[in-house]
Amino acid sequence: MSVTAAKGFRAAGVPAGLKSTGAPDVALVLNDGPSDAAAAVFTSNRCKANPVLWSERAIADGRLRAVVLNSGGANCYTGAEGFQTTHATAEEVARLNSVDPLDVLVCSTGLIGPPLPREKLLAGVADATAKLSAEGGEHAAEAIRTTDTVAKQASVTSPHGWTVGGMAKGAGMLAPALATMLVVLTTDADVDSPALDSALRSATRITFDRLDSDGCQSTNDTVVLVSSGASGMTPDPFEFTAAVTAVCQDLALQLLADAEGADHEIAIEVLGAVSETEAVEVGRSVARSNLFKAAIFGQDANWGRILASVGTTAATFDPADLDVAMNGVWVCRKSAPAESPEGIDLSGRQVGVTIDLKSGPATATVWTNDLTHAYVHENSAYSS
Amino acid sequence: MSVTAAKGFRAAGVPAGLKSTGAPDVALVLNDGPSDAAAAVFTSNRCKANPVLWSERAIADGRLRAVVLNSGGANCYTGAEGFQTTHATAEEVARLNSVDPLDVLVCSTGLIGPPLPREKLLAGVADATAKLSAEGGEHAAEAIRTTDTVAKQASVTSPHGWTVGGMAKGAGMLAPALATMLVVLTTDADVDSPALDSALRSATRITFDRLDSDGCQSTNDTVVLVSSGASGMTPDPFEFTAAVTAVCQDLALQLLADAEGADHEIAIEVLGAVSETEAVEVGRSVARSNLFKAAIFGQDANWGRILASVGTTAATFDPADLDVAMNGVWVCRKSAPAESPEGIDLSGRQVGVTIDLKSGPATATVWTNDLTHAYVHENSAYSS
Repeated sequence: MSVTAAKGFRAAGVPAGLKSTGAPDVALVLNDGPSDAAAAVFTSNRCKANPVLWSERAIADGRLRAVVLNSGGANCYTGAEGFQTTHATAEEVARLNSVDPLDVLVCSTGLIGPPLPREKLLAGVADATAKLSAEGGEHAAEAIRTTDTVAKQASVTSPHGWTVGGMAKGAGMLAPALATMLVVLTTDADVDSPALDSALRSATRITFDRLDSDGCQSTNDTVVLVSSGASGMTPDPFEFTAAVTAVCQDLALQLLADAEGADHEIAIEVLGAVSETEAVEVGRSVARSNLFKAAIFGQDANWGRILASVGTTAATFDPADLDVAMNGVWVCRKSAPAESPEGIDLSGRQVGVTIDLKSGPATATVWTNDLTHAYVHENSAYSS
Repeated sequence: MSVTAAKGFRAAGVPAGLKSTGAPDVALVLNDGPSDAAAAVFTSNRCKANPVLWSERAIADGRLRAVVLNSGGANCYTGAEGFQTTHATAEEVARLNSVDPLDVLVCSTGLIGPPLPREKLLAGVADATAKLSAEGGEHAAEAIRTTDTVAKQASVTSPHGWTVGGMAKGAGMLAPALATMLVVLTTDADVDSPALDSALRSATRITFDRLDSDGCQSTNDTVVLVSSGASGMTPDPFEFTAAVTAVCQDLALQLLADAEGADHEIAIEVLGAVSETEAVEVGRSVARSNLFKAAIFGQDANWGRILASVGTTAATFDPADLDVAMNGVWVCRKSAPAESPEGIDLSGRQVGVTIDLKSGPATATVWTNDLTHAYVHENSAYSS
């Protein structure tokens, strides 16, 4: 499991005093090679946190030796001082581990605005370096938790002898105010950075990118995939992409299940779309409807709110010929009431919605959570 | 006040048993002329309710003699039967009042899916016709209430002797599940339908269209402006547009103030935009951030959530040079912390957010509400 499941990686997680609780808050993942190939994707938010601005530069050459992460502060909109803190963190990791600072990816998560205490963070880096071990993945996964109730880890090992492992924190933007999804994936497969990039983008496109817990987009989101090449195996590209996708999917569903304040995990499946893009657009519109999400919290099979959301999109469909199912019951056929919603049991955590646009061959599934009292409470009470 | 403030209109509101409470639920507004010029705007949702499908046809020639409205059911996605109910309603209004059915606009509000009881509705039309009076505006405004705690009415009288009056129901989509904004405006000014259309679109563009209580878009929204011409006055076009805009603005702010479940009314003012369109895009992105809205409920001046929303737009700005004020305190300058948010008092109902994009001359204000426990409660509990 986790980031040390793949050979060639050591990791650690330590408390550095960034969190007032004294819980672990600095994680370090070191790539011992022989390869240093890597790829990363970042938030598409134009208001990017300092660590993202740094990390975009660090990954530009497709090479990484280390990933350092902290919880307890997003280091976003903290001015030039904040960028210098990120820079100093990378320099310290580099100095202590004899790597190049531009081969160090930096991730931060926490409140936007307040500065990160630089000295505490650098002391944490030193402590984490001292504790690096091939069994340290669990500790690293612990140290990036914020309001996550459990650490999220996953791994897949190929019958051909290579492994993809990973850890994640956050739940889209549902984790109150912390608002960050950080994911570190490691592999001991020997894969060059263009192939890593291709596999990573292919995987995130249909996993993390389809997780839309509350429609809010983080300033700090980072998903990175680092190869040590330590297995000596060069995998089949399709098998490798499938393995990366499986680990991403596993972590994405763990994030969904742990979304703070959520009572339900909702899969919105769109069928019959002209294109995958349109299927995603329709699924996302439903995933972002507060009225629909509140209805699911209330265990109310209010399919009218689903149609009302579908109608806000530019996707190809006939408004008079839509079918909608909830938990397999086709409550709406040809845009009119069909089977009775009376018997639909929405008391379980898993809810399935299917929308058939009857316009083409494409499909997509978007995942979201319900809108609950606990969501409002946690997101109104967080920073006060 | 209301729709009978202008001469040449009679109105009524009666209980027809569509609502289980026995409250008034059918309203009728009759235009006695001499003019029958009218204009209307409808929801841009592609999944339109039956009354909207009918009314788009009825208004096509720019002439109206009556507007009939019901609460207690949206008549949306109710199949061919539902459209026939709308048609029968218009026919009955026409028959009883000696007007053309295609000069009757129909509006409905309530749950999507369940059929409207046609016989009760038609009996209500007969009862309302019998009770039509030049003082009936108040009753009509009462009869279109759903979860509105008060009836919404407004009027402006020109020193030149003509009047614009109006009534409204709903609060964007914040009114739980009813999800409809219906607005009827009347005037005794003598204005032809192209000029009415121009004044109405100009007014709604900067009033109702900028009210975004929860980002959800109704299947039934209708705003109609009918002229009786009974004052015999032909107004100056600018003065007339200003009067229509004033009545729309008055009603829009009444809707905002009565948004169910809301604790705060939030005005998001965007300055320094390249265009008004971009200013609205930025304002709307903040208005739709659940994280920001929950923070305001918690009286938490969390400006990071404002920047995170601005960053999701395609508007022109420098992410490193944004200014943000909350209630007049510039908490962020050049995208870094500035004045302390500590002293900001968010306990009042009115909250002002100002965002300066520093990129151009355009401005816009978008209004929204906070995200509260009561919103979740009402929208999860409504139809069960």
